[in-house]
Amino acid sequence: MRIAPPEVLAGRLDRLRRVLIDEALGALVVTSLPNVAYLTGFFASAGVLLVGADGVTLIGDSRYAEPLAARTRDWPVIRQMVLEPGVSFDAAVVSAVEPLAGRRVGFEARHLTVARHHYLSRALAARGWTDELVATDGLVEELRTTKDAWEVARLKDGAARLSEVAKCILPKVLAGRTEADVAAEIETELRRSGFERPAFDTIVASGPNAALPHARAGDRHIGDGELVVVDFGGVLDGYCTDLTRTVVTGRTGTREREVLDRVAEAQHAAFLAVKAGAAPEAVDDAARRHLAGHGLAEAFTHGTGHGLGLEIHEAPRVTRARAGHVEPTLAAGSVLTLEPGAYFPGWGGVRIEDDVLVTEEGAEWLTDVPRTL
Amino acid sequence: MRIAPPEVLAGRLDRLRRVLIDEALGALVVTSLPNVAYLTGFFASAGVLLVGADGVTLIGDSRYAEPLAARTRDWPVIRQMVLEPGVSFDAAVVSAVEPLAGRRVGFEARHLTVARHHYLSRALAARGWTDELVATDGLVEELRTTKDAWEVARLKDGAARLSEVAKCILPKVLAGRTEADVAAEIETELRRSGFERPAFDTIVASGPNAALPHARAGDRHIGDGELVVVDFGGVLDGYCTDLTRTVVTGRTGTREREVLDRVAEAQHAAFLAVKAGAAPEAVDDAARRHLAGHGLAEAFTHGTGHGLGLEIHEAPRVTRARAGHVEPTLAAGSVLTLEPGAYFPGWGGVRIEDDVLVTEEGAEWLTDVPRTL
Repeated sequence: MRIAPPEVLAGRLDRLRRVLIDEALGALVVTSLPNVAYLTGFFASAGVLLVGADGVTLIGDSRYAEPLAARTRDWPVIRQMVLEPGVSFDAAVVSAVEPLAGRRVGFEARHLTVARHHYLSRALAARGWTDELVATDGLVEELRTTKDAWEVARLKDGAARLSEVAKCILPKVLAGRTEADVAAEIETELRRSGFERPAFDTIVASGPNAALPHARAGDRHIGDGELVVVDFGGVLDGYCTDLTRTVVTGRTGTREREVLDRVAEAQHAAFLAVKAGAAPEAVDDAARRHLAGHGLAEAFTHGTGHGLGLEIHEAPRVTRARAGHVEPTLAAGSVLTLEPGAYFPGWGGVRIEDDVLVTEEGAEWLTDVPRTL
Repeated sequence: MRIAPPEVLAGRLDRLRRVLIDEALGALVVTSLPNVAYLTGFFASAGVLLVGADGVTLIGDSRYAEPLAARTRDWPVIRQMVLEPGVSFDAAVVSAVEPLAGRRVGFEARHLTVARHHYLSRALAARGWTDELVATDGLVEELRTTKDAWEVARLKDGAARLSEVAKCILPKVLAGRTEADVAAEIETELRRSGFERPAFDTIVASGPNAALPHARAGDRHIGDGELVVVDFGGVLDGYCTDLTRTVVTGRTGTREREVLDRVAEAQHAAFLAVKAGAAPEAVDDAARRHLAGHGLAEAFTHGTGHGLGLEIHEAPRVTRARAGHVEPTLAAGSVLTLEPGAYFPGWGGVRIEDDVLVTEEGAEWLTDVPRTL
């Protein structure tokens, strides 16, 4: 797994420090693990980061002593703190934060639980703190929305490999096989192609199951002439890519052909609406209006897409307008999925999904596989 | 995937309602997804449950309309609420909770984030609520610690299948293959054996990588005469099982044999310490003392085990005593891993892990594979 080099990490840290100045914060306690990985290159199942004006402290447990030491060696700005046996992460956060008394220290309100917040607040008050920790909302997530060049390279590499996996696998989605069997072959092929792991549970949904956007892959034997929604993704160097094709086994019926074409057109309409400065809701609307124009408004039951990066679902959300919420406009350097679908309970469904990079002028496809077979 | 039948779910709900009475709560907002699945059989990537004295409301989004309807059909005590487009989960929770004004309504402080708590509190206050939501700590998790008969059957089935996967795969951990290749074969075999998915990223750590408890599986080619830690698990009917063996490729050296034997003995010592009423710390101590008696105290860098169930890591924690924390004593019906290890940076390491059921008299092995090969 490739980890961003120190100069790239330093750029991210600089951007965050400017945000902290704007927010009048002296430090930020980062408890979201993808945010920790983004800022430090430390990928772990547990960890906390404290970013101050003059130092960065990365807290991990003894299982990760070796990668923690490696992070400090590669990028000495990081001070590592390995948990002593019997000390919790939150107790370590208190020790790391304590010397900052008098500064405004932020925490990530979207991630810190009420129980952890309560512990930290009480422990700091017991040490004489009179100021409360300051709730912040998505500061690092917002930085992550605009991918840097290193990230774009990872995502392009991932999308290219994912496209090759699709080309290898889709011809093998055949009547008689079980959904689970196809899913297992996809996941094997993901590993062979260099992905660290699937980005989510692979979906192979055939026949009536194709009408269920939540379906996974089960024991069902794929039938002849059926629609099969195949939705899978891989994690490469920590970055997620995501692709869906809908295959017809055997001969394609008229109705199946019709729905496939309309969904592919809706995806193209969404693609044409993407550019830096566009509202995500307008991109969703482009796909939705195309489907509605063909009587498929009711059949499209989910949003058009989502951001991709260290998480499989991240900002921006490409969905319908929501009451009381304005999604920020798209930024050049964002990477997102475009995945309209149409579902008919009892009959089947179609979804087509690709990954695109937002540019100043429009968008660039990252995945590259024929849309209808 | 098998889902617990209504009479089993009703038993769980009864136990929770008794807890709510003890806590003087009129209702509980359940936001932990494993807790939602435990109480309702609804497995989803998003959802909220409201448990009151006289009704249960399950909130899901439109992707899950079909399984939500199925839950209500199978078990009519559940009232389903499918999110309208543009309505957030938290807005739906407010509507569901609003009629309960005047009752003490609890929330799960370990799971609800500060941001969501803030939203709920403000929205309810705006609707005239004068009472605050009440923080609760692990009420459903504590019920989950004691598995019911239906759960024990699932975990036994999973552990038996996982043992068969191990017997099939371990002889194929051979010099010349890459770690990632072995991991891919394990995950394929998990699917073939009926598991819904791997319970976590499969670990195949060879040679010096075997010294890193956090290692996954990479491009490294396994060498001859090396220790290889193979740690994998599967999810069956929603329940996680977990197994580790350490294989030596080629001839087993004296030092490798010695460490393997000591770790296997430490695991056995832990097993003998397990019974209903025992302190988890005493189980950890049994393994730790055995290793310390052979000069391996420093080499054992993590805890002895963890509970298994709907999550791969759940209560009880079988670790060293922690300052200011007392882990509840073991209960008959708990399922946990016993997984001591010994790690030597630069040289390699050994971990041996099995799953056991706690009984009144002692413990019962659930996984069954020779410990040293």
